[in-house]
Amino acid sequence: MPLTHRIEQAISAAIATAQGADRAAPPQLASALEYAVTPGGARIRPTICLSVALACGDDKPQMSNAAATAIELIHCASLVHDDMPCFDNADVRRGKPTVHLAYSEPLALLTGDSLIIAAFDVLARAADADPARAITLIRILAESTGMPGGICAGQGWESEDKIDLSAYHKAKTGALFTAATRMGAAAAGEEHDAWTELGARIGEAFQVADDLRDALYDEDALGKPAMQDQINGRPNAVSALGVKGAIRRLEDILSGAIASIPSCPGEAALCDMVRKTAERLTPVVPAHQTV
Amino acid sequence: MPLTHRIEQAISAAIATAQGADRAAPPQLASALEYAVTPGGARIRPTICLSVALACGDDKPQMSNAAATAIELIHCASLVHDDMPCFDNADVRRGKPTVHLAYSEPLALLTGDSLIIAAFDVLARAADADPARAITLIRILAESTGMPGGICAGQGWESEDKIDLSAYHKAKTGALFTAATRMGAAAAGEEHDAWTELGARIGEAFQVADDLRDALYDEDALGKPAMQDQINGRPNAVSALGVKGAIRRLEDILSGAIASIPSCPGEAALCDMVRKTAERLTPVVPAHQTV
Repeated sequence: MPLTHRIEQAISAAIATAQGADRAAPPQLASALEYAVTPGGARIRPTICLSVALACGDDKPQMSNAAATAIELIHCASLVHDDMPCFDNADVRRGKPTVHLAYSEPLALLTGDSLIIAAFDVLARAADADPARAITLIRILAESTGMPGGICAGQGWESEDKIDLSAYHKAKTGALFTAATRMGAAAAGEEHDAWTELGARIGEAFQVADDLRDALYDEDALGKPAMQDQINGRPNAVSALGVKGAIRRLEDILSGAIASIPSCPGEAALCDMVRKTAERLTPVVPAHQTV
Repeated sequence: MPLTHRIEQAISAAIATAQGADRAAPPQLASALEYAVTPGGARIRPTICLSVALACGDDKPQMSNAAATAIELIHCASLVHDDMPCFDNADVRRGKPTVHLAYSEPLALLTGDSLIIAAFDVLARAADADPARAITLIRILAESTGMPGGICAGQGWESEDKIDLSAYHKAKTGALFTAATRMGAAAAGEEHDAWTELGARIGEAFQVADDLRDALYDEDALGKPAMQDQINGRPNAVSALGVKGAIRRLEDILSGAIASIPSCPGEAALCDMVRKTAERLTPVVPAHQTV
Protein backbone atom coordinates (compact mmCIF):
# COMPACT_ATOMS: atom_id res chain seq x y z
CA MET A 1 0.00 0.00 0.00
CA PRO A 2 1.44 3.45 -0.86
CA LEU A 3 2.40 5.50 2.20
CA THR A 4 -0.21 8.21 1.60
CA HIS A 5 -2.99 5.62 1.37
CA ARG A 6 -1.87 3.98 4.56
CA ILE A 7 -1.81 7.32 6.39
CA GLU A 8 -5.23 8.47 5.14
CA GLN A 9 -6.79 5.12 6.02
CA ALA A 10 -5.38 5.19 9.56
CA ILE A 11 -6.49 8.79 10.13
CA SER A 12 -9.99 8.08 8.80
CA ALA A 13 -10.33 5.08 11.10
CA ALA A 14 -9.30 7.18 14.12
CA ILE A 15 -11.78 9.93 13.23
CA ALA A 16 -14.57 7.35 12.74
CA THR A 17 -13.83 5.99 16.22
CA ALA A 18 -13.99 9.49 17.71
CA GLN A 19 -17.21 10.21 15.84
CA GLY A 20 -18.76 7.26 17.63
CA ALA A 21 -20.11 5.21 14.70
CA ASP A 22 -23.51 4.05 16.01
CA ARG A 23 -23.16 5.67 19.45
CA ALA A 24 -24.96 8.95 20.16
CA ALA A 25 -22.52 11.84 19.63
CA PRO A 26 -23.11 15.56 19.04
CA PRO A 27 -23.38 15.73 15.22
CA GLN A 28 -21.72 19.11 14.63
CA LEU A 29 -18.69 18.32 16.76
CA ALA A 30 -18.44 14.91 15.08
CA SER A 31 -18.50 16.62 11.69
CA ALA A 32 -15.97 19.27 12.78
CA LEU A 33 -13.45 16.56 13.72
CA GLU A 34 -13.42 15.31 10.13
CA TYR A 35 -13.42 18.86 8.73
CA ALA A 36 -10.33 19.68 10.80
CA VAL A 37 -8.22 16.82 9.47
CA THR A 38 -9.23 17.00 5.77
CA PRO A 39 -8.09 17.66 3.11
CA GLY A 40 -4.79 16.28 4.26
CA GLY A 41 -2.27 18.31 2.34
CA ALA A 42 1.24 16.89 2.47
CA ARG A 43 0.78 15.00 5.76
CA ILE A 44 4.45 15.70 6.18
CA ARG A 45 4.79 14.66 9.84
CA PRO A 46 3.05 11.26 9.57
CA THR A 47 4.98 10.62 6.33
CA ILE A 48 8.26 11.19 8.16
CA CYS A 49 7.08 9.01 11.04
CA LEU A 50 6.06 6.09 8.80
CA SER A 51 9.21 6.45 6.67
CA VAL A 52 11.39 6.10 9.76
CA ALA A 53 9.30 3.16 10.99
CA LEU A 54 9.73 1.47 7.60
CA ALA A 55 13.45 2.18 7.61
CA CYS A 56 13.59 0.47 11.01
CA GLY A 57 11.75 -2.65 9.82
CA ASP A 58 8.09 -1.73 10.57
CA ASP A 59 7.64 -5.08 12.37
CA LYS A 60 4.32 -4.01 13.95
CA PRO A 61 2.50 -1.94 11.31
CA GLN A 62 -0.48 -1.31 13.63
CA MET A 63 1.89 0.46 16.00
CA SER A 64 3.52 2.53 13.23
CA ASN A 65 0.11 3.56 11.90
CA ALA A 66 -0.98 4.62 15.38
CA ALA A 67 2.16 6.70 15.84
CA ALA A 68 1.73 8.46 12.50
CA THR A 69 -1.97 9.10 13.15
CA ALA A 70 -1.43 10.44 16.67
CA ILE A 71 1.10 12.98 15.42
CA GLU A 72 -1.19 14.20 12.65
CA LEU A 73 -4.23 14.47 14.97
CA ILE A 74 -2.23 16.59 17.42
CA HIS A 75 -0.88 18.70 14.59
CA CYS A 76 -4.41 19.35 13.29
CA ALA A 77 -5.58 20.14 16.84
CA SER A 78 -2.85 22.76 17.17
CA LEU A 79 -3.84 24.32 13.82
CA VAL A 80 -7.49 24.57 14.90
CA HIS A 81 -6.60 26.22 18.21
CA ASP A 82 -3.92 28.49 16.65
CA ASP A 83 -6.41 29.75 14.05
CA MET A 84 -8.89 30.87 16.72
CA PRO A 85 -9.57 34.59 17.23
CA CYS A 86 -7.54 34.78 20.45
CA PHE A 87 -4.44 33.59 18.54
CA ASP A 88 -3.94 34.15 14.80
CA ASN A 89 -7.60 34.93 14.07
CA ALA A 90 -7.19 33.20 10.71
CA ASP A 91 -10.05 32.93 8.23
CA VAL A 92 -8.57 30.40 5.85
CA ARG A 93 -6.69 27.13 6.35
CA ARG A 94 -5.82 24.64 3.62
CA GLY A 95 -7.91 26.73 1.24
CA LYS A 96 -11.17 26.56 3.20
CA PRO A 97 -12.73 28.47 6.12
CA THR A 98 -11.12 27.74 9.48
CA VAL A 99 -13.07 25.54 11.93
CA HIS A 100 -14.26 28.41 14.13
CA LEU A 101 -15.74 30.13 11.06
CA ALA A 102 -17.20 26.99 9.47
CA TYR A 103 -18.69 25.84 12.81
CA SER A 104 -18.24 28.16 15.81
CA GLU A 105 -15.65 29.18 18.37
CA PRO A 106 -16.93 26.77 21.05
CA LEU A 107 -16.88 23.91 18.54
CA ALA A 108 -13.37 24.85 17.39
CA LEU A 109 -12.14 24.77 20.97
CA LEU A 110 -13.80 21.38 21.53
CA THR A 111 -12.51 20.05 18.21
CA GLY A 112 -8.94 20.79 19.26
CA ASP A 113 -9.47 19.24 22.70
CA SER A 114 -11.11 16.14 21.22
CA LEU A 115 -8.33 15.66 18.66
CA ILE A 116 -5.64 15.90 21.37
CA ILE A 117 -7.45 13.24 23.38
CA ALA A 118 -8.03 11.09 20.28
CA ALA A 119 -4.28 11.14 19.60
CA PHE A 120 -3.53 9.57 22.98
CA ASP A 121 -6.45 7.18 22.57
CA VAL A 122 -5.13 5.92 19.22
CA LEU A 123 -1.81 5.01 20.85
CA ALA A 124 -3.46 3.35 23.84
CA ARG A 125 -5.70 1.30 21.53
CA ALA A 126 -2.62 0.03 19.67
CA ALA A 127 -1.21 -1.28 22.96
CA ASP A 128 -2.65 -4.75 22.31
CA ALA A 129 0.21 -5.20 19.85
CA ASP A 130 2.84 -4.17 22.43
CA PRO A 131 2.02 -2.32 25.70
CA ALA A 132 5.60 -1.23 26.39
CA ARG A 133 6.00 0.38 22.96
CA ALA A 134 2.62 2.09 23.31
CA ILE A 135 3.72 3.62 26.62
CA THR A 136 6.96 4.85 25.05
CA LEU A 137 4.98 6.45 22.22
CA ILE A 138 2.56 8.12 24.64
CA ARG A 139 5.45 9.56 26.64
CA ILE A 140 7.13 10.97 23.54
CA LEU A 141 3.85 12.44 22.32
CA ALA A 142 3.16 14.11 25.68
CA GLU A 143 6.69 15.48 25.86
CA SER A 144 6.42 16.89 22.32
CA THR A 145 3.03 18.52 22.73
CA GLY A 146 2.59 19.70 26.33
CA MET A 147 4.60 21.71 28.80
CA PRO A 148 7.49 22.40 29.38
CA GLY A 149 8.97 21.67 25.93
CA GLY A 150 6.18 20.74 23.50
CA ILE A 151 4.16 22.76 21.02
CA CYS A 152 2.00 24.27 23.81
CA ALA A 153 5.19 25.64 25.35
CA GLY A 154 6.20 26.98 21.93
CA GLN A 155 2.93 28.87 21.69
CA GLY A 156 3.29 29.95 25.30
CA TRP A 157 6.59 31.68 24.54
CA GLU A 158 4.71 33.99 22.18
CA SER A 159 3.00 35.54 25.22
CA GLU A 160 6.34 36.45 26.82
CA ASP A 161 8.14 39.81 26.53
CA LYS A 162 11.51 38.07 26.79
CA ILE A 163 11.61 35.02 24.54
CA ASP A 164 14.15 32.21 24.95
CA LEU A 165 14.56 31.86 21.16
CA SER A 166 16.24 28.47 21.22
CA ALA A 167 13.58 26.97 23.51
CA TYR A 168 10.89 28.72 21.47
CA HIS A 169 11.91 27.26 18.08
CA LYS A 170 12.66 23.84 19.53
CA ALA A 171 9.18 23.68 21.04
CA LYS A 172 7.12 25.55 18.45
CA THR A 173 8.07 23.65 15.24
CA GLY A 174 10.85 21.30 16.25
CA ALA A 175 8.93 19.26 18.80
CA LEU A 176 6.50 17.58 16.40
CA PHE A 177 9.26 16.77 13.90
CA THR A 178 11.46 15.14 16.52
CA ALA A 179 8.30 13.37 17.72
CA ALA A 180 7.81 12.09 14.16
CA THR A 181 11.26 10.54 13.82
CA ARG A 182 11.45 9.31 17.43
CA MET A 183 7.96 7.81 17.36
CA GLY A 184 8.65 6.16 13.99
CA ALA A 185 11.70 4.45 15.47
CA ALA A 186 9.96 3.60 18.77
CA ALA A 187 6.95 2.15 16.92
CA ALA A 188 9.35 -0.28 15.23
CA GLY A 189 10.99 -1.17 18.53
CA GLU A 190 14.18 0.84 17.98
CA GLU A 191 15.95 3.06 20.46
CA HIS A 192 14.47 6.50 19.69
CA ASP A 193 17.06 8.96 21.01
CA ALA A 194 19.35 8.35 18.03
CA TRP A 195 16.58 9.71 15.81
CA THR A 196 16.14 13.07 17.54
CA GLU A 197 18.68 14.88 15.37
CA LEU A 198 17.06 13.92 12.08
CA GLY A 199 13.72 15.25 13.33
CA ALA A 200 15.28 18.41 14.69
CA ARG A 201 16.99 19.16 11.37
CA ILE A 202 13.88 18.48 9.32
CA GLY A 203 11.98 20.77 11.71
CA GLU A 204 14.55 23.50 11.31
CA ALA A 205 14.38 23.16 7.51
CA PHE A 206 10.62 23.32 7.67
CA GLN A 207 10.77 26.53 9.70
CA VAL A 208 13.12 28.20 7.20
CA ALA A 209 10.97 26.99 4.29
CA ASP A 210 7.86 28.32 6.01
CA ASP A 211 9.56 31.68 6.56
CA LEU A 212 10.46 31.76 2.86
CA ARG A 213 6.94 30.89 1.72
CA ASP A 214 5.47 33.40 4.15
CA ALA A 215 7.69 36.11 2.68
CA LEU A 216 7.42 35.12 -1.01
CA TYR A 217 3.87 33.90 -1.61
CA ASP A 218 0.46 35.54 -1.44
CA GLU A 219 -2.65 34.19 0.34
CA ASP A 220 -3.91 32.31 -2.75
CA ALA A 221 -0.70 30.33 -3.11
CA LEU A 222 -0.36 29.72 0.64
CA GLY A 223 -3.98 28.74 1.34
CA LYS A 224 -3.67 30.95 4.45
CA PRO A 225 -2.94 34.64 5.15
CA ALA A 226 0.52 35.77 3.97
CA MET A 227 3.20 37.94 5.64
CA GLN A 228 1.99 36.89 9.08
CA ASP A 229 5.47 36.84 10.61
CA GLN A 230 6.19 40.36 9.47
CA ILE A 231 2.75 41.58 10.59
CA ASN A 232 3.10 39.95 14.02
CA GLY A 233 6.80 40.85 14.42
CA ARG A 234 7.83 37.21 14.83
CA PRO A 235 11.48 36.16 14.31
CA ASN A 236 12.01 35.02 10.70
CA ALA A 237 14.92 33.52 8.70
CA VAL A 238 14.27 35.75 5.67
CA SER A 239 14.54 38.99 7.63
CA ALA A 240 17.77 37.67 9.21
CA LEU A 241 19.46 36.16 6.10
CA GLY A 242 17.62 37.51 3.04
CA VAL A 243 15.89 35.21 0.54
CA LYS A 244 19.10 33.84 -1.05
CA GLY A 245 20.74 33.31 2.33
CA ALA A 246 17.66 31.53 3.66
CA ILE A 247 17.56 29.18 0.65
CA ARG A 248 21.26 28.36 1.15
CA ARG A 249 20.60 27.74 4.84
CA LEU A 250 17.75 25.38 3.93
CA GLU A 251 20.03 23.32 1.69
CA ASP A 252 22.70 23.08 4.39
CA ILE A 253 20.22 21.94 7.00
CA LEU A 254 18.85 19.21 4.74
CA SER A 255 22.33 17.88 3.94
CA GLY A 256 22.93 17.71 7.68
CA ALA A 257 19.62 15.89 8.10
CA ILE A 258 20.64 13.19 5.62
CA ALA A 259 24.05 12.84 7.25
CA SER A 260 22.41 12.35 10.67
CA ILE A 261 20.35 9.28 9.71
CA PRO A 262 21.35 6.37 11.97
CA SER A 263 22.42 3.16 10.30
CA CYS A 264 19.28 1.03 9.70
CA PRO A 265 17.96 -1.54 7.20
CA GLY A 266 16.07 1.05 5.13
CA GLU A 267 18.67 3.81 5.22
CA ALA A 268 18.81 4.38 1.44
CA ALA A 269 15.05 4.73 1.02
CA LEU A 270 14.90 7.11 3.97
CA CYS A 271 17.62 9.35 2.52
CA ASP A 272 15.53 9.44 -0.64
CA MET A 273 12.46 10.51 1.34
CA VAL A 274 14.37 13.33 3.03
CA ARG A 275 15.65 14.50 -0.37
CA LYS A 276 12.08 14.53 -1.72
CA THR A 277 10.92 16.44 1.35
CA ALA A 278 13.70 18.94 0.66
CA GLU A 279 12.50 19.45 -2.91
CA ARG A 280 8.94 19.86 -1.74
CA LEU A 281 10.00 22.35 0.92
CA THR A 282 12.25 24.57 -1.19
CA PRO A 283 10.00 27.29 -2.53
CA VAL A 284 10.05 28.39 -6.15
CA VAL A 285 10.91 32.08 -6.05
CA PRO A 286 8.14 33.91 -7.96
CA ALA A 287 9.40 35.65 -11.14
CA HIS A 288 8.45 39.14 -9.90
CA GLN A 289 10.40 38.68 -6.66
CA THR A 290 13.97 39.96 -6.25
CA VAL A 291 16.07 37.57 -4.22
CA MET B 1 -1.13 10.18 55.07
CA PRO B 2 -4.61 11.71 54.97
CA LEU B 3 -6.31 11.45 51.58
CA THR B 4 -6.35 15.19 50.93
CA HIS B 5 -2.61 15.45 51.61
CA ARG B 6 -1.88 12.59 49.28
CA ILE B 7 -3.95 14.17 46.50
CA GLU B 8 -2.42 17.65 46.85
CA GLN B 9 1.08 16.20 46.90
CA ALA B 10 0.48 14.16 43.74
CA ILE B 11 -1.09 17.11 41.90
CA SER B 12 1.75 19.45 42.92
CA ALA B 13 4.32 16.96 41.67
CA ALA B 14 2.55 16.69 38.32
CA ILE B 15 2.38 20.48 37.94
CA ALA B 16 6.06 20.83 38.87
CA THR B 17 6.91 18.31 36.12
CA ALA B 18 4.83 20.25 33.59
CA GLN B 19 6.45 23.52 34.70
CA GLY B 20 9.79 22.02 33.77
CA ALA B 21 11.78 22.55 36.99
CA ASP B 22 15.20 23.67 35.68
CA ARG B 23 14.29 23.41 31.98
CA ALA B 24 13.44 26.56 30.04
CA ALA B 25 9.65 27.00 29.94
CA PRO B 26 7.48 30.03 29.22
CA PRO B 27 7.04 31.56 32.71
CA GLN B 28 3.48 32.84 32.40
CA LEU B 29 2.10 29.58 31.05
CA ALA B 30 4.03 27.71 33.76
CA SER B 31 2.45 29.95 36.38
CA ALA B 32 -1.02 29.63 34.84
CA LEU B 33 -0.88 25.83 35.16
CA GLU B 34 -0.53 26.14 38.92
CA TYR B 35 -3.11 28.92 39.11
CA ALA B 36 -5.64 26.71 37.31
CA VAL B 37 -5.40 23.81 39.75
CA THR B 38 -5.27 25.79 43.02
CA PRO B 39 -6.88 26.30 45.45
CA GLY B 40 -8.17 22.78 45.26
CA GLY B 41 -11.62 23.05 46.75
CA ALA B 42 -13.18 19.68 47.56
CA ARG B 43 -11.12 17.68 45.02
CA ILE B 44 -14.19 15.50 44.86
CA ARG B 45 -13.25 13.41 41.78
CA PRO B 46 -9.73 12.43 42.90
CA THR B 47 -11.10 11.75 46.40
CA ILE B 48 -13.62 9.31 44.93
CA CYS B 49 -10.91 7.75 42.77
CA LEU B 50 -8.48 7.23 45.65
CA SER B 51 -11.26 6.02 47.96
CA VAL B 52 -12.19 3.32 45.45
CA ALA B 53 -8.52 2.40 44.96
CA LEU B 54 -8.12 2.08 48.73
CA ALA B 55 -11.31 0.02 49.00
CA CYS B 56 -9.79 -2.31 46.36
CA GLY B 57 -6.50 -2.71 48.25
CA ASP B 58 -4.39 0.12 46.76
CA ASP B 59 -1.56 -2.35 46.08
CA LYS B 60 0.33 0.10 43.82
CA PRO B 61 -0.11 3.56 45.40
CA GLN B 62 1.90 5.26 42.65
CA MET B 63 -0.70 4.05 40.16
CA SER B 64 -3.64 5.19 42.31
CA ASN B 65 -2.06 8.62 42.78
CA ALA B 66 -1.54 8.94 39.03
CA ALA B 67 -5.17 8.03 38.35
CA ALA B 68 -6.48 10.56 40.87
CA THR B 69 -4.16 13.28 39.57
CA ALA B 70 -5.00 12.68 35.91
CA ILE B 71 -8.73 13.04 36.61
CA GLU B 72 -8.26 16.29 38.52
CA LEU B 73 -5.95 17.79 35.86
CA ILE B 74 -8.50 17.04 33.14
CA HIS B 75 -11.30 18.42 35.31
CA CYS B 76 -9.36 21.66 35.85
CA ALA B 77 -8.59 21.86 32.11
CA SER B 78 -12.30 21.62 31.33
CA LEU B 79 -13.08 24.40 33.84
CA VAL B 80 -10.48 26.70 32.28
CA HIS B 81 -11.82 26.13 28.76
CA ASP B 82 -15.49 26.30 29.84
CA ASP B 83 -14.89 29.64 31.55
CA MET B 84 -13.52 31.23 28.37
CA PRO B 85 -15.48 33.98 26.61
CA CYS B 86 -16.67 31.70 23.80
CA PHE B 87 -18.35 29.41 26.37
CA ASP B 88 -19.56 30.64 29.76
CA ASN B 89 -17.54 33.87 29.72
CA ALA B 90 -17.11 33.53 33.49
CA ASP B 91 -15.19 36.08 35.53
CA VAL B 92 -14.84 34.16 38.75
CA ARG B 93 -13.89 30.56 39.57
CA ARG B 94 -13.19 29.21 43.07
CA GLY B 95 -13.43 32.78 44.35
CA LYS B 96 -10.70 34.26 42.13
CA PRO B 97 -10.49 35.64 38.56
CA THR B 98 -10.73 32.99 35.87
CA VAL B 99 -7.51 32.07 34.02
CA HIS B 100 -8.31 34.08 30.88
CA LEU B 101 -8.82 37.20 33.01
CA ALA B 102 -5.83 36.63 35.32
CA TYR B 103 -3.53 35.82 32.36
CA SER B 104 -5.04 36.09 28.86
CA GLU B 105 -7.27 34.18 26.46
CA PRO B 106 -4.35 32.61 24.56
CA LEU B 107 -2.78 31.47 27.82
CA ALA B 108 -6.10 30.07 29.07
CA LEU B 109 -6.46 28.05 25.88
CA LEU B 110 -2.89 26.75 26.23
CA THR B 111 -3.35 26.06 29.95
CA GLY B 112 -6.30 23.79 29.19
CA ASP B 113 -4.41 22.03 26.39
CA SER B 114 -1.31 21.57 28.55
CA LEU B 115 -3.32 20.18 31.47
CA ILE B 116 -5.07 17.66 29.20
CA ILE B 117 -1.68 16.48 27.92
CA ALA B 118 -0.22 16.45 31.45
CA ALA B 119 -3.05 14.15 32.55
CA PHE B 120 -2.08 11.53 29.98
CA ASP B 121 1.60 12.05 30.75
CA VAL B 122 1.06 11.38 34.46
CA LEU B 123 -0.50 8.02 33.66
CA ALA B 124 2.22 7.08 31.17
CA ARG B 125 4.92 7.98 33.69
CA ALA B 126 3.32 5.66 36.25
CA ALA B 127 3.64 2.78 33.77
CA ASP B 128 6.94 1.66 35.31
CA ALA B 129 4.86 0.22 38.13
CA ASP B 130 2.60 -1.71 35.74
CA PRO B 131 2.35 -0.98 31.95
CA ALA B 132 -0.88 -2.92 31.43
CA ARG B 133 -2.70 -1.02 34.19
CA ALA B 134 -1.39 2.29 32.87
CA ILE B 135 -2.78 1.50 29.42
CA THR B 136 -6.17 0.61 30.92
CA LEU B 137 -6.19 3.92 32.81
CA ILE B 138 -5.26 5.89 29.69
CA ARG B 139 -8.05 4.23 27.72
CA ILE B 140 -10.64 5.02 30.41
CA LEU B 141 -9.44 8.62 30.66
CA ALA B 142 -9.64 9.11 26.87
CA GLU B 143 -13.10 7.55 26.75
CA SER B 144 -14.32 9.79 29.57
CA THR B 145 -12.94 13.03 28.23
CA GLY B 146 -12.95 12.96 24.42
CA MET B 147 -15.45 12.15 21.72
CA PRO B 148 -17.92 10.48 21.33
CA GLY B 149 -18.94 10.08 24.99
CA GLY B 150 -16.61 12.11 27.22
CA ILE B 151 -16.85 15.62 28.63
CA CYS B 152 -15.95 17.19 25.25
CA ALA B 153 -18.97 15.45 23.78
CA GLY B 154 -21.07 16.72 26.70
CA GLN B 155 -20.03 20.28 25.89
CA GLY B 156 -20.55 19.58 22.20
CA TRP B 157 -24.21 18.73 22.81
CA GLU B 158 -24.73 22.30 24.03
CA SER B 159 -24.14 23.50 20.46
CA GLU B 160 -26.97 21.33 19.10
CA ASP B 161 -30.58 22.40 18.53
CA LYS B 162 -31.80 18.89 19.29
CA ILE B 163 -30.08 17.52 22.39
CA ASP B 164 -29.95 13.82 23.25
CA LEU B 165 -30.52 14.53 26.96
CA SER B 166 -29.42 11.12 28.23
CA ALA B 167 -26.19 11.20 26.20
CA TYR B 168 -25.68 14.85 27.21
CA HIS B 169 -25.89 14.27 30.98
CA LYS B 170 -23.92 11.04 30.81
CA ALA B 171 -21.09 12.82 28.99
CA LYS B 172 -21.22 16.27 30.57
CA THR B 173 -21.05 15.41 34.28
CA GLY B 174 -21.32 11.64 34.44
CA ALA B 175 -18.20 10.79 32.46
CA LEU B 176 -15.61 12.08 34.93
CA PHE B 177 -17.37 10.49 37.90
CA THR B 178 -17.53 7.08 36.25
CA ALA B 179 -13.89 7.66 35.27
CA ALA B 180 -13.12 8.30 38.95
CA THR B 181 -14.61 5.03 40.22
CA ARG B 182 -13.43 2.94 37.26
CA MET B 183 -9.90 4.34 37.32
CA GLY B 184 -9.71 3.88 41.11
CA ALA B 185 -10.56 0.19 40.67
CA ALA B 186 -8.30 -0.25 37.62
CA ALA B 187 -5.38 1.43 39.42
CA ALA B 188 -5.68 -1.26 42.10
CA GLY B 189 -5.84 -4.02 39.50
CA GLU B 190 -9.57 -4.68 39.80
CA GLU B 191 -12.05 -5.21 36.97
CA HIS B 192 -13.41 -1.70 36.43
CA ASP B 193 -16.79 -2.23 34.73
CA ALA B 194 -18.40 -3.25 38.03
CA TRP B 195 -17.61 0.24 39.33
CA THR B 196 -19.35 2.20 36.57
CA GLU B 197 -22.71 2.36 38.35
CA LEU B 198 -21.30 3.88 41.54
CA GLY B 199 -19.63 6.63 39.52
CA ALA B 200 -22.75 7.23 37.44
CA ARG B 201 -24.92 7.62 40.54
CA ILE B 202 -22.47 9.93 42.28
CA GLY B 203 -22.34 11.98 39.06
CA GLU B 204 -26.13 12.16 38.92
CA ALA B 205 -26.23 13.25 42.57
CA PHE B 206 -23.61 15.87 41.87
CA GLN B 207 -25.64 17.23 38.97
CA VAL B 208 -28.79 17.54 41.11
CA ALA B 209 -26.79 19.13 43.94
CA ASP B 210 -25.25 21.58 41.49
CA ASP B 211 -28.67 22.46 40.13
CA LEU B 212 -29.84 23.08 43.71
CA ARG B 213 -26.86 25.26 44.59
CA ASP B 214 -27.20 27.16 41.31
CA ALA B 215 -30.85 27.91 42.13
CA LEU B 216 -30.45 28.61 45.86
CA TYR B 217 -27.14 30.41 46.34
CA ASP B 218 -25.77 33.75 45.20
CA GLU B 219 -22.41 34.41 43.56
CA ASP B 220 -20.60 35.03 46.86
CA ALA B 221 -21.61 31.66 48.27
CA LEU B 222 -20.97 29.80 44.99
CA GLY B 223 -17.62 31.40 44.15
CA LYS B 224 -18.93 31.66 40.55
CA PRO B 225 -21.89 33.37 38.84
CA ALA B 226 -25.31 32.12 40.08
CA MET B 227 -28.50 31.19 38.18
CA GLN B 228 -26.48 30.23 35.11
CA ASP B 229 -28.78 27.32 34.18
CA GLN B 230 -31.85 29.53 34.24
CA ILE B 231 -30.07 32.32 32.33
CA ASN B 232 -28.76 29.92 29.67
CA GLY B 233 -32.00 27.86 29.51
CA ARG B 234 -30.20 24.63 30.43
CA PRO B 235 -32.17 21.63 31.73
CA ASN B 236 -32.22 21.67 35.54
CA ALA B 237 -33.56 19.34 38.28
CA VAL B 238 -34.97 22.23 40.34
CA SER B 239 -37.12 23.57 37.52
CA ALA B 240 -38.36 20.01 36.89
CA LEU B 241 -38.96 18.86 40.49
CA GLY B 242 -38.90 21.97 42.70
CA VAL B 243 -36.41 22.40 45.55
CA LYS B 244 -38.00 19.82 47.90
CA GLY B 245 -38.37 17.32 45.08
CA ALA B 246 -34.79 17.79 43.99
CA ILE B 247 -33.50 17.26 47.55
CA ARG B 248 -35.55 14.04 47.84
CA ARG B 249 -34.19 12.91 44.48
CA LEU B 250 -30.63 13.56 45.68
CA GLU B 251 -31.15 11.37 48.74
CA ASP B 252 -32.58 8.55 46.61
CA ILE B 253 -29.67 8.64 44.20
CA LEU B 254 -27.11 8.47 46.99
CA SER B 255 -28.85 5.49 48.64
CA GLY B 256 -28.68 3.80 45.25
CA ALA B 257 -25.00 4.69 44.99
CA ILE B 258 -24.23 3.02 48.31
CA ALA B 259 -26.24 -0.06 47.34
CA SER B 260 -24.29 -0.36 44.07
CA ILE B 261 -20.84 -0.68 45.68
CA PRO B 262 -19.28 -4.01 44.61
CA SER B 263 -18.08 -6.32 47.34
CA CYS B 264 -14.45 -5.40 48.17
CA PRO B 265 -12.06 -5.39 51.16
CA GLY B 266 -12.74 -1.74 52.05
CA GLU B 267 -16.48 -1.71 51.40
CA ALA B 268 -17.46 -0.23 54.79
CA ALA B 269 -15.04 2.69 54.57
CA LEU B 270 -16.15 3.43 51.04
CA CYS B 271 -19.84 3.52 52.06
CA ASP B 272 -18.80 6.00 54.71
CA MET B 273 -17.04 8.17 52.11
CA VAL B 274 -20.13 8.20 49.88
CA ARG B 275 -22.29 9.19 52.87
CA LYS B 276 -19.91 12.06 53.68
CA THR B 277 -19.96 13.14 50.04
CA ALA B 278 -23.75 13.13 50.26
CA GLU B 279 -23.69 15.40 53.29
CA ARG B 280 -21.25 17.73 51.60
CA LEU B 281 -23.36 17.80 48.44
CA THR B 282 -26.76 18.43 50.02
CA PRO B 283 -27.17 22.20 50.11
CA VAL B 284 -28.40 24.04 53.17
CA VAL B 285 -31.51 25.87 52.02
CA PRO B 286 -31.00 29.57 52.89
CA ALA B 287 -33.49 30.89 55.48
CA HIS B 288 -35.00 33.47 53.10
CA GLN B 289 -35.69 30.82 50.46
CA THR B 290 -39.10 29.14 50.16
CA VAL B 291 -38.75 25.48 49.24
